[in-house]
Amino acid sequence: MSQPAHTDAFQSNANGTVKSPGALEHGDDEGAPIVIRKQGNFAVGGRVVSTPGTYDPSTQGPQGQTHHGDHAQVTYQIPADARALPLVFLHGSGQSSKTWGSTPDGREGFQNIFLRRGFPVYVLEQPRRGNAGKSTVSSTISAAPDEQRLFDNFRIGVWPNYFPGGQFPRDPASLEQYFRQMTPDTGPYDAEVIASAISALFDRIGPGVLITHSQGGGPGWLTAIKNRNVRAIVSYEPGSGFVFPVGEVPPPMPAATAALEAAGVPDAEFDRLTQIPISIVYGDNIARAPVADKGPDHWRVRLSMARLWADALNRRGGDATVLHLPELGIHGNTHFPFSDLNNLEIANLLSTFLREKGLD
Amino acid sequence: MSQPAHTDAFQSNANGTVKSPGALEHGDDEGAPIVIRKQGNFAVGGRVVSTPGTYDPSTQGPQGQTHHGDHAQVTYQIPADARALPLVFLHGSGQSSKTWGSTPDGREGFQNIFLRRGFPVYVLEQPRRGNAGKSTVSSTISAAPDEQRLFDNFRIGVWPNYFPGGQFPRDPASLEQYFRQMTPDTGPYDAEVIASAISALFDRIGPGVLITHSQGGGPGWLTAIKNRNVRAIVSYEPGSGFVFPVGEVPPPMPAATAALEAAGVPDAEFDRLTQIPISIVYGDNIARAPVADKGPDHWRVRLSMARLWADALNRRGGDATVLHLPELGIHGNTHFPFSDLNNLEIANLLSTFLREKGLD
Repeated sequence: MSQPAHTDAFQSNANGTVKSPGALEHGDDEGAPIVIRKQGNFAVGGRVVSTPGTYDPSTQGPQGQTHHGDHAQVTYQIPADARALPLVFLHGSGQSSKTWGSTPDGREGFQNIFLRRGFPVYVLEQPRRGNAGKSTVSSTISAAPDEQRLFDNFRIGVWPNYFPGGQFPRDPASLEQYFRQMTPDTGPYDAEVIASAISALFDRIGPGVLITHSQGGGPGWLTAIKNRNVRAIVSYEPGSGFVFPVGEVPPPMPAATAALEAAGVPDAEFDRLTQIPISIVYGDNIARAPVADKGPDHWRVRLSMARLWADALNRRGGDATVLHLPELGIHGNTHFPFSDLNNLEIANLLSTFLREKGLD
Repeated sequence: MSQPAHTDAFQSNANGTVKSPGALEHGDDEGAPIVIRKQGNFAVGGRVVSTPGTYDPSTQGPQGQTHHGDHAQVTYQIPADARALPLVFLHGSGQSSKTWGSTPDGREGFQNIFLRRGFPVYVLEQPRRGNAGKSTVSSTISAAPDEQRLFDNFRIGVWPNYFPGGQFPRDPASLEQYFRQMTPDTGPYDAEVIASAISALFDRIGPGVLITHSQGGGPGWLTAIKNRNVRAIVSYEPGSGFVFPVGEVPPPMPAATAALEAAGVPDAEFDRLTQIPISIVYGDNIARAPVADKGPDHWRVRLSMARLWADALNRRGGDATVLHLPELGIHGNTHFPFSDLNNLEIANLLSTFLREKGLD
């Protein structure tokens, strides 16, 4: 039988609706071809644990065997005529490199967008997550249903209602993709383990800009403290792990979810964070004062903490900015601004930051 | 300060030795740039489980919450001027899409090689593995050391010795990458769950060629039984899951590891596998008669079973071939021929198969 010229499976149009699966169509490209000078993937960082004794190949018992774990996995793409500094992308809780790939409705995410803009991109799976699943600590994984909680806490709406004017697509197929892009921890979450692996990546690739999301914020700060090759950080909706000078740690901030606590680090470590530009970005539907809705209240205290944190950095000569998107006239963003319907507008803000700081 | 033009991190030369991390160099490209018409990723297939009741956003209790799991994750790249039929790549046990990415010593794997040869490529994480980690069944993950057993059973050598003339690179950094590309199951292994998700992918993309490795062999046969869009299968070192007509199941084959058992399927299902070309490829250091070394003996019975299976298919009009690489004069291949030092030679065999069967 005759074969159609191959087109990819994920058919979407400009306003984010998904065409029926199996419908092969042409002409849905989102731009010119991407010219890749080189691409690949590798593990970086990590530890080795072993069982004492000598390995016996005739029994293959545990004695003398090793276990490599706690590394990150990195997928990189270097475009032709690349800019000097790469962008390194770290996902948040329950996520993988998929965070920066195709959006839930099949549009291009930040990986493609910034490749098209000439940046080398490195997308991570942090240690003990996704393809970097080998942990040096055993773990259990629960299949307990929790997606409605996440729909709420990630500020898509209050289940089953979407926030009016929200930037998340409304079709069921997109929500299904969103739920399926999550993937569990395969070992205990450990910010130091993560920061060590990402620091090893920066040792290897040299100077670059670190882009983090949500839970990735904390390991991101720790990585920049460890490694001067982190030349800037852009953090989307950091949710925990704010580190202050030991004498300046703010009190816990109660919220409708759980209280948010900051941690203390030695002044010398904190001061490392004043040496690089830092941009923090939060979306819409974050409460200004305490409310019962858990999503808007959860992020109320995080936005407040981020502002205290930027103030603490800037008091010591830092260059930290908190962008609350609605204050810029950009409305409806969820906890995932980089994959929301207006993600090109969000990408433009990142491009502007990189240009203004001389990083592009 | 001035920035060097960016080069990627993973520096390797033609004979597979790895340069020191952090050494930024130019001129190590393995070929012309790759022109990508479109690339992205998505989840496909899967199930939804839920907790009875109605979700209450004020408590976020379990009632009425859903859990999407058991999908595959797919990363696709469509080159410019693509051939008609895509190649769909399914990894084996303890592996992810990384199987087909950069080799342990940083050369190009089958993903890049076949992109360069003009094929659309879809690389999978099967359900309950890597970035497709969300399982509908809870699980535990062990960090028990077992890498020396895998070194042996994947026929790199008998730990700590490499097989003479083997095609695995000898530097420690490559072995470390090899161990770190493994990632555990995040739920119970279930060939039917995997085949269902991959069949859903073929529903979506239309006709294509399925390339499997090791444990992926079994779900691959099941996928072809389910879905006529699987136009051919090339299986590297299938290790289990051989399905025979119910009346023709061979007896278990004892080995120095565990006995290999085949399964029975209805004749009508088996006959579906006679409708497509099937190529099965095994590497070197597989015993001809029972031996104590577990790796060579483990694969002795698998190669024997594959030959029985191909005979059973061909007796019913099938088109199945078993390539034992040493019989072609290709020596030293491990359980991962597609990433061994001679993987371009192995790729050429695949290209020849695709051309001979009219699939390119």
